[in-house]
Amino acid sequence: MREMKVNADSHAYPVYVGENLRFQVGRLLKEDYSSILIISDTTVGELYLEDIMSGINHPHIFHTLVPAGEASKNIEQFYEVHTKAIEYGLDRHSLIIALGGGVIGDLAGFVAATYMRGVDYVQIPTTILAHDSSVGGKVAVNHHLGKNLIGNFYPPKAVIYDVQTLESLDAKQVRSGYAELVKEAFIGDDQFLQQLLDIQLNDINSSQLIEHLYNGIHIKASIVEQDEKEAGIRKYLNLGHTLGHALEAEAGYGRIAHGEAVAIGILFALYVSEKEYGINLPYQQLLGWLHLNGYPLNISGAAPEALIRRMKSDKKNIGSRIQMILLQSPGNVTTKEINEELLTDYLTTFKRKLV
Amino acid sequence: MREMKVNADSHAYPVYVGENLRFQVGRLLKEDYSSILIISDTTVGELYLEDIMSGINHPHIFHTLVPAGEASKNIEQFYEVHTKAIEYGLDRHSLIIALGGGVIGDLAGFVAATYMRGVDYVQIPTTILAHDSSVGGKVAVNHHLGKNLIGNFYPPKAVIYDVQTLESLDAKQVRSGYAELVKEAFIGDDQFLQQLLDIQLNDINSSQLIEHLYNGIHIKASIVEQDEKEAGIRKYLNLGHTLGHALEAEAGYGRIAHGEAVAIGILFALYVSEKEYGINLPYQQLLGWLHLNGYPLNISGAAPEALIRRMKSDKKNIGSRIQMILLQSPGNVTTKEINEELLTDYLTTFKRKLV
Ligand SMILES: NC(=O)c1ccc[n+]([C@@H]2O[C@H](COP(=O)([O-])OP(=O)(O)OC[C@H]3O[C@@H](n4cnc5c(N)ncnc54)[C@H](O)[C@@H]3O)[C@@H](O)[C@H]2O)c1
Ligand SMILES: NC(=O)c1ccc[n+]([C@@H]2O[C@H](COP(=O)([O-])OP(=O)(O)OC[C@H]3O[C@@H](n4cnc5c(N)ncnc54)[C@H](O)[C@@H]3O)[C@@H](O)[C@H]2O)c1
Ligand SMILES: [Zn+2]
Ligand SMILES: [Zn+2]
Repeated sequence: MREMKVNADSHAYPVYVGENLRFQVGRLLKEDYSSILIISDTTVGELYLEDIMSGINHPHIFHTLVPAGEASKNIEQFYEVHTKAIEYGLDRHSLIIALGGGVIGDLAGFVAATYMRGVDYVQIPTTILAHDSSVGGKVAVNHHLGKNLIGNFYPPKAVIYDVQTLESLDAKQVRSGYAELVKEAFIGDDQFLQQLLDIQLNDINSSQLIEHLYNGIHIKASIVEQDEKEAGIRKYLNLGHTLGHALEAEAGYGRIAHGEAVAIGILFALYVSEKEYGINLPYQQLLGWLHLNGYPLNISGAAPEALIRRMKSDKKNIGSRIQMILLQSPGNVTTKEINEELLTDYLTTFKRKLV
Repeated sequence: MREMKVNADSHAYPVYVGENLRFQVGRLLKEDYSSILIISDTTVGELYLEDIMSGINHPHIFHTLVPAGEASKNIEQFYEVHTKAIEYGLDRHSLIIALGGGVIGDLAGFVAATYMRGVDYVQIPTTILAHDSSVGGKVAVNHHLGKNLIGNFYPPKAVIYDVQTLESLDAKQVRSGYAELVKEAFIGDDQFLQQLLDIQLNDINSSQLIEHLYNGIHIKASIVEQDEKEAGIRKYLNLGHTLGHALEAEAGYGRIAHGEAVAIGILFALYVSEKEYGINLPYQQLLGWLHLNGYPLNISGAAPEALIRRMKSDKKNIGSRIQMILLQSPGNVTTKEINEELLTDYLTTFKRKLV
C-alpha cells in the first residue's frame, strides 16, 4: 500500500492506494460516527458493496444506490439521496461513503457537503478516472445547461483506493481514466509522461497501476494544495477540458466517456500550443498512443460552431471570452485567450487531421 | 450609520446599519464584478428593486424574483435561480445580491455558495428577522422532511441594512423579527434584554431600531466568530428553536411567522429552565411583553406527541435524543438532554398554561 497526505485548507486527509483495501475501511476510519451511509451506483453496488460492508463493524450502517451513469449526477438524484439520508436518521456526526466512480464521488460528495450544512465523507474510488475526482474536494451535480455548475469545494476525510476493484472496468473506462493520468503527467512530470506513453493499456499489472495512480494523485494534490479554490494554477488541471467538456456535451453526456473526450482535448491543446508558440510538442507521440490504445478520435460529427458555443460557457472563462490551457513545453503550463475566429480555424483544421 | 466588522473563517466582512443605504450599494461594494444578479421576492422586488438598481452603476446587472414566502425556499426555486444565473451569463467573478428577508437571504446565499462552486454575495436584509439570517453565513433550502436540511456555511461579502426598508413591514413581521432580538438579548446582554422588554413594538423610532439591530447583530456575530461551524456555542443561538421549528412545521411553514414560533419556543425554554434548575427567570415578564405586543400564544392545536416527534429530528440532536438549549440565568446558556417522557409532561403543562 502507498500512502500520501493531502493538505486541504480546512484539514489534512490521507490517500491510501493499494490492494485489498475494500475490506479494511472500518480500520482506516479515524473517527467515531453516529451512523454511516454508503452511496453507490447499481453496477458498483452489485460488485463491491458487500466487501465494503464486511469490513465495517457499525450498528447503524445504511446504503443507497443510484442508477449507474452520468445522468445520475443531477439535482433530482441529489435531492433523493438527501431524502434517504434523512429517512435513515443521519445526523451531523454521521459519515457518508462514496463508493464508485467520479459520478458517485461528485454526487455523494455534494450531498455530504450540504447535508445539514456538511457532514464528513470518505471517497472509495472504483474507476481509474476517479483518482482525479476523489482528490481535491470538487463536488457537484450537473445543470441541464452545463456540467458541474452546481457544487462546492468540500474535501473528503480520506480516500481509500483499492486497485483490485479496477479489474472489473471495461476497456473504455480504462482509457477514460488513463487520459487524466496523461494529463497530469503533461502538467507535472515529464518522466512519468514518457513512462505512460510507453505502456499498452491492456497490459498493466497491479503494481504499475498503483504507481501510476499514486503519481497522478501526487501531481494533482500538489497543485490543489497550492490553490484549492481555483483562483490560479488549479486551472491547469483543466488541460484538455475546454474542448473535452464541449465534446461530451455535444455527444450527450455519457455517450463518450469523460476521459475519452479529454484525451481529444489534450491533443487539441498540444496542437494549439504548437501553433501559438511555434514549438514542437509530443503531438504525434500522443496521437500514436491514443490510436494504439483504441481511443475514439473521430469527431467529424460535431460542428465547430456548436463546440465553440459550448466552450464559451465554460466555468473558467471570464465573461464570454475563451481561455485555453496550453503548454509552452511539457511541465510548463500557461493560459491564453484565443479569439473565437482563430479558434474556429484551429478546430476545423484539427478535426480534419483527425479523420 | 453604524458599522461593524465580522470575522468569518474565510474572510472578514462589514455590516452597515443605517438609513438610505439602499441607494448606496454600488459605493459600498469593494470589488469589481463581471456581472451582478439581484435575487429578491415579488413583494420586496416591487418595493425596493428600483432603489437598489439606481445606486449601482454596472453594465451587466440582472434581477430575478421568486414568489414571496417560505415556500420558495425549496430545491425547485434553487435550481430555477441557477438557471437564471446561467442564462444571464454569470461567471465566477460575478456577484449575487440577496434583497429580501431570511427566505431570500438563505436561498440566494445557497445559490451563491453553489453556483460554479461559489461566487461572492451581499446581503441586503429587508426584514427585522433577517438581521439574524444575514449574518453568520448559514444558507440553506428546506427539504420536505425538514427545515434548512440542505445548505452550506457560506458568509457574505457584506451586509447592507437600510432600516427605512423596514417601514413597510406589517406587525406580524415586526413581531417575528423582534423575537430573535429578544433571543439574542437573553443570550448575550441583560441590559439590552431589559431595554427590549420595556418597549412597545408599534412605537419604535428609526434610531432605536438601528440600535436594536446593531446590538442583536453584535451578539450574534461575536458568537459566530468563535464557532462558525456550530461545533459548540453557536448552538446557543438556537434558543427557542427546538420547539419553534416544531411549531412552524406542525402549523405548515409560513402559517405562523418563524419568529412568532421562536417566541413561544423561548418562553418554553424559560419554563423548562426554571423547572430543571429550580431557578427564577423573567418568564412572566416575557409572557406579559408577548401578550402586550400581540404575539399569538395559543398552541392548543398542536399535539405534544407530534411536536416531540418533530423536535427529535432537529439537526442539532445527536442520534434521536432531544437536546434543549436552556438558561441558568439570563446570559448564562447551556444545553441539556431531556428525556422524551419528561419533555412531554413539560410541554403538556406549558401548553395548558398558555391558553
Ligand atoms: N470532482 C472532480 O475533480 C472531477 C474530476 C474529474 C472528473 N470528474 C467527474 O467524474 C465523472 C466521471 O467519472 P467516471 O468516469 O468514474 O464515471 P462513473 O462514475 O459514471 O463510472 C463509469 C462507469 O463505470 C462503472 N463502474 C465504476 N466502477 C466500476 C468498477 N470498478 N467495475 C466496473 N464498472 C465500474 C459505473 O457504474 C459507470 O457505469 C464525471 O461526472 C466528471 O465530471 C470530477
Ligand atoms: N440563515 C440563518 O442564520 C437564519 C436565521 C434565522 C432565520 N432564517 C430563515 O429566515 C426565514 C424567515 O425570514 P423572514 O421572516 O425574513 O421571511 P421572508 O423572507 O419570507 O419575509 C417575510 C415576508 O415579508 C415580506 N417582506 C420582506 N421584506 C419586506 C419589506 N421590507 N416590506 C414588506 N414586506 C416585506 C416578504 O415578501 C415575505 O412575504 C426562514 O426561512 C428562516 O429559516 C435563517
Ligand atoms: Zn476530467
Ligand atoms: Zn430563527
